[in-house]
Amino acid sequence: MTVISAYTAEQAGADLTLSQITFGPLKPYEVEIKVEYCGICHSDLSMIDNEWGASQYPLVAGHEIIGRIVALGDSTRGLQIGQRVGVGWTAESCQHCDQCISGHQNLCGEAVSTIGQHYGGFAERVRASWEWVIPLPDQLDPATAGPLLCGGITVFNPLIQHGILPYQRVGVIGIGGLGHLAIGFAHAWGCHVTAFSSDPSKADAIRAMGADAVVDSRDDRALQALTGQLDLLIVCVNVPLNWDAYLRTLAPQGRLHMVGAVLQPIPVPAFSLISGQKSVAGSPTGSPSGLRYMMRFAAQHQIAPTVQYFPMSQINDALKHVREGKARYRVVLQADFDQVNA
Amino acid sequence: MTVISAYTAEQAGADLTLSQITFGPLKPYEVEIKVEYCGICHSDLSMIDNEWGASQYPLVAGHEIIGRIVALGDSTRGLQIGQRVGVGWTAESCQHCDQCISGHQNLCGEAVSTIGQHYGGFAERVRASWEWVIPLPDQLDPATAGPLLCGGITVFNPLIQHGILPYQRVGVIGIGGLGHLAIGFAHAWGCHVTAFSSDPSKADAIRAMGADAVVDSRDDRALQALTGQLDLLIVCVNVPLNWDAYLRTLAPQGRLHMVGAVLQPIPVPAFSLISGQKSVAGSPTGSPSGLRYMMRFAAQHQIAPTVQYFPMSQINDALKHVREGKARYRVVLQADFDQVNA
Repeated sequence: MTVISAYTAEQAGADLTLSQITFGPLKPYEVEIKVEYCGICHSDLSMIDNEWGASQYPLVAGHEIIGRIVALGDSTRGLQIGQRVGVGWTAESCQHCDQCISGHQNLCGEAVSTIGQHYGGFAERVRASWEWVIPLPDQLDPATAGPLLCGGITVFNPLIQHGILPYQRVGVIGIGGLGHLAIGFAHAWGCHVTAFSSDPSKADAIRAMGADAVVDSRDDRALQALTGQLDLLIVCVNVPLNWDAYLRTLAPQGRLHMVGAVLQPIPVPAFSLISGQKSVAGSPTGSPSGLRYMMRFAAQHQIAPTVQYFPMSQINDALKHVREGKARYRVVLQADFDQVNA
Repeated sequence: MTVISAYTAEQAGADLTLSQITFGPLKPYEVEIKVEYCGICHSDLSMIDNEWGASQYPLVAGHEIIGRIVALGDSTRGLQIGQRVGVGWTAESCQHCDQCISGHQNLCGEAVSTIGQHYGGFAERVRASWEWVIPLPDQLDPATAGPLLCGGITVFNPLIQHGILPYQRVGVIGIGGLGHLAIGFAHAWGCHVTAFSSDPSKADAIRAMGADAVVDSRDDRALQALTGQLDLLIVCVNVPLNWDAYLRTLAPQGRLHMVGAVLQPIPVPAFSLISGQKSVAGSPTGSPSGLRYMMRFAAQHQIAPTVQYFPMSQINDALKHVREGKARYRVVLQADFDQVNA
């Protein structure tokens, strides 16, 4: 039995409060990590607010976690006490279903998310099954790496999934926490990158991220000029857009790839898929192997999110900052339990 | 200048009439074929009726053509006078765009369909650009092979496009002209095949085509029992279905693939794609290489459509038979111009 401090939501939409939670005995496959940093993802807010109807309270959100291993269960593999690691959206998978055994553990039907039926990273410590504990390459700054574990892999995975090649053209809709990482990855991948943003004041900043072109996401005439251009279009927004216009920007065999949780169904005309052999796809974060590949790629190309820091003790201010759309482009909490508990 | 006989539609929805049409000089890249057989595809009716708003009259439909080469332009390649060949949906492509030069000629933006701005196969002769003239393997019966050129390739192409492997599970919705060929191909591919039909009286016939399971396409409870099962689901109907229920039958990484021209947009919830890394795709017939591979595969596995024959001189009766949904499973016209013109 281990008692730790954590910032808990006691009910939907409530401010978080500093509480004590109790961990049972460490399971053989589990790793316990002392949290150093934790990013804030929009889905933390969705879970705190019970927007998807699946939240259980008290809830500890936070799933872009960086820290050091402090305990290892007996059946864990390939990890060491003291090692710096990351944990993202998924904390556990069954390890034996077809998806797990074939390396697609993110598609496991029994997967446990880090913040659902499980305590997340807005806490002193967090636990996860060893396969989901991702070693941090030395070249990555631990203070900025947290958002790679969820935001990063979410936009990196489509490049793997669709076998995107460097001569192809990638579009990114919505240049926030996910979108700015998507631009960084696609640019380093060697692709021509078109960014779609509803905020023209960001254009210079977006070019500096690696975008070759910046287009107003609501300018139908600008979209029309891109007819038939894009091999992959990654949708990082969670609001409805002029989907017909975006489908027309796809090249033959192009894919519109959803990673933003747009709640309204997207009306897809069969003809718009048939005539150019196009598709509409989606994906949930990525697998442990995808996470490792992404970490090495980020280290090699020095890709890091642009972050703003808050001490974890100011977590409610930080959440408010994110809720108000002020994050540029991701907020990272620095654990300060030692000071708070002193 | 060549004057030939053809069955023309003079206006939308009209009965066809036996007329004379005039071909200009044979272009260097063109092949002229004496028509022996021509299948009737539902899209012939759509074009005769101007359902898609793109028809030009007088219109000669027919694009599942089998015949023998009677003339070759000077720049044609690899074909011989007298050779038995087939022509499908596409009669011409530009040969120089990226899609053409990379072997995806069916995605050429300048492609000319056999029955749009071009005279089709309900005629004594037809012309097509040499790359779209597909040699018929000796082992294929020319009397039944016509429907492979459009219906066949339309359902064969998704198996290539998605790299389907024989251990995967394929579903087919709508067991008519396209669907019965989809079952035949997927079965010969080595896949487990689930057929969805709205007509339970066809179940035994559908099993005989190679289906391992037959499910009532409108029985939501039966669909529920298939949750997470199918790697590829080929949609051969052109009416709206309970798409949510069908999306749930997809396995992780599964694809719902549209080949039927459903006019109402399909409402796709982003979450239903994201959670299992699924996609909704479509495709238009196939490329010349796809057509050749399909022909060889059909010959090797003795896959042929089940057809009903009409003499071409009874074409209006044949079209009525198809319009009334009585085709079991494809209607083929046998050219009888020699008798008619005698």
